[in-house]
Amino acid sequence: MEGNSGLSTHWKEITLLESVQGVLGWDEQVMLPPKGADWRGSQGALLARLVHERLTDPFVWESIQNAESHAVLEASRANIREMKRRVVRARRIPGRLVEELARATSRGVHIWQEARSRGDFAKFLPELQTIVRLKQEEAACAGYEQSPYDALLDEYEPGCRSSEIDSIFNKLEPALALLIREAKGRPQGLAPKGNYPEESQKKLGLEVSQAIGFDLQGGRLDTSAHPFCSGHGPGDCRITTRYDETDFTQSFYGILHETGHALYEQGLPAEHAGQAWCVASSLGMHESQSRFWENMVGRSSAFWDWCWPLAHRVLGPSLAAKEILVPMINRIGPSFIRVESDETCYNLHILLRYRLEKAMIEGTLVPKDLPGAWNEAFEKAFGLKVTSDREGCLQDVHWSTGGIGYFPTYTLGNLIAAQLREAMDRDLGGMSQMVSRGEFAPILGWLREKVHHRGRLATALEITRTATGGPLESDALLRHLTKIGHGEF
Amino acid sequence: MEGNSGLSTHWKEITLLESVQGVLGWDEQVMLPPKGADWRGSQGALLARLVHERLTDPFVWESIQNAESHAVLEASRANIREMKRRVVRARRIPGRLVEELARATSRGVHIWQEARSRGDFAKFLPELQTIVRLKQEEAACAGYEQSPYDALLDEYEPGCRSSEIDSIFNKLEPALALLIREAKGRPQGLAPKGNYPEESQKKLGLEVSQAIGFDLQGGRLDTSAHPFCSGHGPGDCRITTRYDETDFTQSFYGILHETGHALYEQGLPAEHAGQAWCVASSLGMHESQSRFWENMVGRSSAFWDWCWPLAHRVLGPSLAAKEILVPMINRIGPSFIRVESDETCYNLHILLRYRLEKAMIEGTLVPKDLPGAWNEAFEKAFGLKVTSDREGCLQDVHWSTGGIGYFPTYTLGNLIAAQLREAMDRDLGGMSQMVSRGEFAPILGWLREKVHHRGRLATALEITRTATGGPLESDALLRHLTKIGHGEF
Repeated sequence: MEGNSGLSTHWKEITLLESVQGVLGWDEQVMLPPKGADWRGSQGALLARLVHERLTDPFVWESIQNAESHAVLEASRANIREMKRRVVRARRIPGRLVEELARATSRGVHIWQEARSRGDFAKFLPELQTIVRLKQEEAACAGYEQSPYDALLDEYEPGCRSSEIDSIFNKLEPALALLIREAKGRPQGLAPKGNYPEESQKKLGLEVSQAIGFDLQGGRLDTSAHPFCSGHGPGDCRITTRYDETDFTQSFYGILHETGHALYEQGLPAEHAGQAWCVASSLGMHESQSRFWENMVGRSSAFWDWCWPLAHRVLGPSLAAKEILVPMINRIGPSFIRVESDETCYNLHILLRYRLEKAMIEGTLVPKDLPGAWNEAFEKAFGLKVTSDREGCLQDVHWSTGGIGYFPTYTLGNLIAAQLREAMDRDLGGMSQMVSRGEFAPILGWLREKVHHRGRLATALEITRTATGGPLESDALLRHLTKIGHGEF
Repeated sequence: MEGNSGLSTHWKEITLLESVQGVLGWDEQVMLPPKGADWRGSQGALLARLVHERLTDPFVWESIQNAESHAVLEASRANIREMKRRVVRARRIPGRLVEELARATSRGVHIWQEARSRGDFAKFLPELQTIVRLKQEEAACAGYEQSPYDALLDEYEPGCRSSEIDSIFNKLEPALALLIREAKGRPQGLAPKGNYPEESQKKLGLEVSQAIGFDLQGGRLDTSAHPFCSGHGPGDCRITTRYDETDFTQSFYGILHETGHALYEQGLPAEHAGQAWCVASSLGMHESQSRFWENMVGRSSAFWDWCWPLAHRVLGPSLAAKEILVPMINRIGPSFIRVESDETCYNLHILLRYRLEKAMIEGTLVPKDLPGAWNEAFEKAFGLKVTSDREGCLQDVHWSTGGIGYFPTYTLGNLIAAQLREAMDRDLGGMSQMVSRGEFAPILGWLREKVHHRGRLATALEITRTATGGPLESDALLRHLTKIGHGEF
């Protein structure tokens, strides 16, 4: 960092503490014995306080202001911008509110779990009311220009405003609805059932993950209830999946998805670790990397040209022929549950959630009316009647954790992935041929250069524009989904 | 804690940070991808600094002095005593020395690994010289009455002095030598070779570990290069072992040993977690718990009355008959390597190391002369000529980590275990019958009451005296080892 080694050291300490939080979080989901949960909560709360103390230390604020006028290099300016963004926010949110949110969401997750298992929205309602109220307060403290929702979105998608999302999503929605209507008239493949021992699934997943570039010297694969990817500083990025022995595609696409996230983390320039710009540019960009490998690569016919012989060797004769398998894994059909959704319907799931959570934060929808609003919007989008909130507005963990503003990043990820894919096709001259030969290095190399190595030097939308030559829009994703709808995998 | 909730909160924060260090340490040995080692080192160094800052915070020292006169309850007095011990030491050791030691030992471990693999003492010598010099300096800063070695021993065995160890060890030595000479004349069983899949060994180990009381709701079993037990606060105590598929006893006794440690951690009163007294009383007492279950229980004929049918069911027909197996696992015979040693020879290994490290700290042995001194003492003790330092003074990691003062706690553990066992026999009226019926609850209950629940309310030697009615001495261990020498298992 130019000019201020004290600030640089201080920021590295924040990064180290956050990476320790990352290890504890991974451990909690993968390793922690149940009785250790309370103490782990206390460890996490302490670390959160230590990070907050360092972000709000007057020395940091003064140092950033002093450094601002001297920052000339791109990385220095990005560092200042990112530190300022975080410090300004941390200084604006009172410690009292941070603690109230921590308590409300810790309680919220537990009660949500119970409420979901019983489909009992009334049980969760008081928690949701508290969480929405506190998030509104957080938005008011953090400040915003147009919508209070923007103040929350900025945590996950720095620099992005809901007006930008609205204009893209509004164009996307009718086109998606049309694709889904069209798909209804066509026969769809069945889920690929069979008998696939967990060990074989893991072996296949690891081979494919490494083939596309995951470095096991700096990472690992484990099992958890909900698949995730967790980077804890250079040389330590871990992915998880879960196994269904009747359906290998669950673990397989879980691993491909998380590998996409991991490749981004492993592609951040380790030599700059601890600098504020040396992190992924946004959640949307992160999701673009996972969706790129999972969907743009992993569900393509070209990919299965390469992968089928390998999968057949590892999984054995119950693997369907490629001609049957590929349509199966690209089938389109509405379902109640987001995480079980196909690529096309998925985005409608997100649109629905985005609009409802935005309305709750803006105060035009009160939490009490959420189930009704959900069910009405769901039937309009998918033509299906929700009969239990378990399969409706209680299905996702996000709101109980206070993660309001997170949902739209999923669809941003899909949009960015499709757009990157088209640009890559132009630059490399035909990605599919490479994929069909298992030549993933040029593809990963392109992503490394255009996205990974750039960290947070710019916003996700700016990085997308530079990489693809145009602003983010919905055309590329719609072209991709239309092809799938027409059976061109 | 009586009277000072600020101090209590502050100390809990130290405990929380140390438990986070514990999680990171466990993860480093069990999970961490190799490329993550550097960043993990930085995380660890930061946490060490945060702990040290809190120990040396003037507020703590003032609060302890204020609280000292008001402490009436046993727990309060123990808290003050333990906090004072740690704070006084932390204030006396300059930060510069702490850092030099961290650097020297981090470097030392790496160079030791290389030096050991090549049996090249000359390569390790400069590191050892630096480490011994810094530990002498540490002892001088920490202060002592008789030997500088006492200042180092106090870290592992609070309140214990080397003069006490000398008087016990000096009595033990000739008796052990006699037992080993006698054993030479008798035929010894062979190592129990066979074919035991790792999965079966793990299943057996877990069943036995749980049968004697290990709570898997608050713990787990994993694999690592060097077996260990690691407690990270209430409800999270983890053990590891390693597997040799030709010899199940390696993993089996590893698991029993670490289970003994884990039962101690799981027996600390969770409701007082974060208070200074609520930790194990010493490393010697910790080792007594592991040795008790591994040796006093696990190698006894009574234990195999209960365990053999279970082991046979899990391991299959290659398990030797009990009459062959039990002498095998109690065989006595000198070996060069401490960790492969039998129960009797083990203590002579420790005596040798204890005397050499004490001489180095007192300055009567210079590191350059260590191999000669080791080899001479080894031949005198075991009648074997050391031909490579790999199997001699380079075999253990301890000195390279700065762990001087640690070795004697192993034999203290054996002594305490034997003495506890005799007292338990008197109190419960025959431990062996219970063991042979798999009734471990009364045995664990006795240890819980006499040892575990007492934490650090008193020193290990005081706890032993209270539990057994007499001071620590060598007779009980010698009676136990004599029986084994005579084939009474």
